[in-house]
Formats: sequence, C-alpha cells, structure tokens
Amino acid sequence: MFTTTIITLVPEAFPGPLGASILQRGRENGLWDLETVNLRGFGVGKHRNVDDTPAGGGAGMVIRPDVAAAAIDSIDRGGRPLVYLSPRGKPFNQQKARDWAAGPGLVLFCGRFEGLDERVIEARGMEEVSLGDFVLAGGEVAAMAMVEAVVRLLPGVAGNEASLTDESFEQGLLEHAHYTVPREWDGRSTPDVLLSGDHRRIEEWRRNSAKTLTKQRRPDLYAAYSETPKFQPPETGDEHD
Amino acid sequence: MFTTTIITLVPEAFPGPLGASILQRGRENGLWDLETVNLRGFGVGKHRNVDDTPAGGGAGMVIRPDVAAAAIDSIDRGGRPLVYLSPRGKPFNQQKARDWAAGPGLVLFCGRFEGLDERVIEARGMEEVSLGDFVLAGGEVAAMAMVEAVVRLLPGVAGNEASLTDESFEQGLLEHAHYTVPREWDGRSTPDVLLSGDHRRIEEWRRNSAKTLTKQRRPDLYAAYSETPKFQPPETGDEHD
Repeated sequence: MFTTTIITLVPEAFPGPLGASILQRGRENGLWDLETVNLRGFGVGKHRNVDDTPAGGGAGMVIRPDVAAAAIDSIDRGGRPLVYLSPRGKPFNQQKARDWAAGPGLVLFCGRFEGLDERVIEARGMEEVSLGDFVLAGGEVAAMAMVEAVVRLLPGVAGNEASLTDESFEQGLLEHAHYTVPREWDGRSTPDVLLSGDHRRIEEWRRNSAKTLTKQRRPDLYAAYSETPKFQPPETGDEHD
Repeated sequence: MFTTTIITLVPEAFPGPLGASILQRGRENGLWDLETVNLRGFGVGKHRNVDDTPAGGGAGMVIRPDVAAAAIDSIDRGGRPLVYLSPRGKPFNQQKARDWAAGPGLVLFCGRFEGLDERVIEARGMEEVSLGDFVLAGGEVAAMAMVEAVVRLLPGVAGNEASLTDESFEQGLLEHAHYTVPREWDGRSTPDVLLSGDHRRIEEWRRNSAKTLTKQRRPDLYAAYSETPKFQPPETGDEHD
C-alpha cells in the first residue's frame, strides 16, 4: 500500500482536506494510507523543546538537528523518498507527482519557524521540495497539496481514469474550457460545436481552446509545448494554421 | 477585518491547518476571519445537484454556471477579489500574496470534478489563479495555501515582523542555510563564522549562502536577481566577485 508519513508539529491538522471525497474513499478502500509523527515527541528536556535560536543571531527559531533526526530515524522508510518541504526546494510539479505516484510512498517533513538546521538536511539526504514561490507558516499545507496531487494518480483512486489524461499539464497544455447545462444561461450560449455530436470537430475545438488559453496565460508552457515533437494526424484539408 | 470567504463543496475541511499556530492566534485576536459557503446549498432539484455532464461529452462532471453564480451572488464581496482556484490560472506567488494582504480580504471559489462552466467565470469576472503546475482533487488545499501565505503577512499575525523580511523571495533569493544548537552534531559543526559575533561577516556569509543556493537550485530566480539594480555598499577590498 502507498503510505505517506508526515512528520509535523501540527498533527491535528491532518487528515483535514485529505479526509474528503475521492481521497477518503481511496483510503477506506485500502489504496493508500496516511500516518503522522509528532515532532514534539522527540523534543529535548522537560519542555520537549524542538527548536532554539539561530546560530549567528537573527529573528525566529530553528528546528534542532538532533530532534529532527530522532523523528526521522523512528520511521521505517522502506525505500520511500524523504522530503523536506521548504520554499528553498525544487518546485513541485505534475511530473514529480507522477514520479512519486509510481513509487512506494512518501515521508514528508514539515518545517515550522525559520526552518531546519542544515546539517540534518545533509546528514539524512533530505530532498528539498517547494510547493511554489511563496512562503507558508509551515509545511503542513504543502504536504497536503503534494499528497493530494500524488494520491489521486494512484490506480483506483480517481473514479474515472480517463479524466486524468485529459487535464492540465498532461498534454503540456492547460485544459480547455468546460460547459454544461443549461445551454443558455445569463444571455450566454454553450458553443454550438459542443452540441453538434461531431466528435472530430469537438476534439479540434477543445485542442484549440487549450492552445489559445495556454498561449495567452502561460507563454512559458506554450513555448515548451511548441518545441515538443508531436504526432501529426493526416491532413484533412480544413485546417489552416 | 481581513475576511476570507471560501465557496466549497467540502466546508468540513476548514479551517484544517488554518486553525493552528499563528493563524489561529491571529483569528482569535480579530486580525482576520474565515467563513465558508457550501456550494451544495445552491444546488438545483431535490438532490441539490451542482454539476452535470460536459457539453460535447467526455469524462467527469462540470459545475453548473447557475449554481456557481447563485453562491457567488449570495456573498457581500465588498471590493474583495473573486478568485477561481484552477491549474489553468496565473501561478500564485509571494508578490500576489503581498498584493492580496494589502487588500480588504478574499473570496475564493474551490473547483471540484472537471471544473467550472466557462460562462460563469466570464460573467462574474473571476480571476483564475493556480497554486502551481500540478492538479489537485479540488481547490480546497489551494485555498488553504493561499490564505495561509496571505494571512501571515497581515500586521500582527506573525510574532516577529523581522522574520518576514529575511525569508525566501523577499530579497529575490532563496533563504540562506540555518544552524542552531548543538554546535557539534553527528560529526558536523556549525560554521565558525556564525559563532564569531562579527555581525558584518555573518551578514556576508548569509548573503553568500543565499546566492549560492539560489544559483544552484533556481537559475531562473538567480538570473532575475542578477538583473535587478541593487544598492552597492562601498568597496571594502575583501570581496572579489
């Protein structure tokens, strides 16, 4: 089973949103599991201190290397990646989610305060991964986001596997626009082509919608997409771009 | 007060991690507030349906525009940005967090299933923002991450304002390495300079640590940093780069 172990000072925040919807059903069906390890339990002294002032001075507190190592060493990793969630890490993305989903599980260390003593990151070979170019109060929400992105890719977790191949980033593009009932709403119509029943034209409309959106909003993604060699369907004579 | 309103099908996931630590204290101290609006309450028919099949066919379900609009229109926005959390949006970052923290609050719409009917995004002028280049099961965790990143910047929420100016992205760099007690651990020492008491050398060591880390891990950030004009301190004769 795909097991995610979260080392945290805020175990009560879990499962939080990971206890809802398809993730919860997947967990009930034994497709994955979540466990938390309370870093406080490895603190030193009668107050179970986990942090101390930064060497060299400055604001905030730093998590002690001995305390972090004791928590890490208490876990049977069994080949799972050991990840430190930190804005200094390599940015998380869909490719990373796919890579992790193909593995045995995850061990995620959530930072708090100013961060973790550098020596334990080195000594335990922790992989630093960032949720994005912003700063959180702690790693817990980042852990939730990564677990959710990974677990929904595990076989059997998402109800409809087809929906996983037709979404943002899977084709190197953002996803096309969606429409549903009612056909007319607030003076706005569903595009006729989507109601035509002509699957080839619908597919073409969606591909163009995805390309237009990506070009407008994410020129970086669109440039990478344009440089990727793609299978060329036979010319049909009605496409002119 | 800075109020965040979350429109969601999973209101029970909140506050989750937003109910912990400095965020919880800030909320108790009246510095910000969080409220949820259950999208299900605006569903149609006796089953309170919020979604239907996609026009044009395909996997999954799409949130109806009339249902989404009814939920949005039930809220007194009071000048707050109306944000749709979606991987198709503009990526969230620290600058966005600062911009939002300077405003009156946030209204965040969490997607589920395949997404939201395009017409309501247009009709209500929703701003699409993405947590990053990955796909979640729903917008709830993205909402938590954005609220956490924004609320910790509000005056009085973080215990030590100084720690906010010395972190990743605030100077265009990743944050420097941290060390704390014990001085020696697992055969690894705290760098001598950090124990020297010489504040100028400590500052210089930290700046070099931040630059080295950013150059190695995020050449994109480092390139942007290098191109930004900076105040040049007078030459001291001991820097050669």
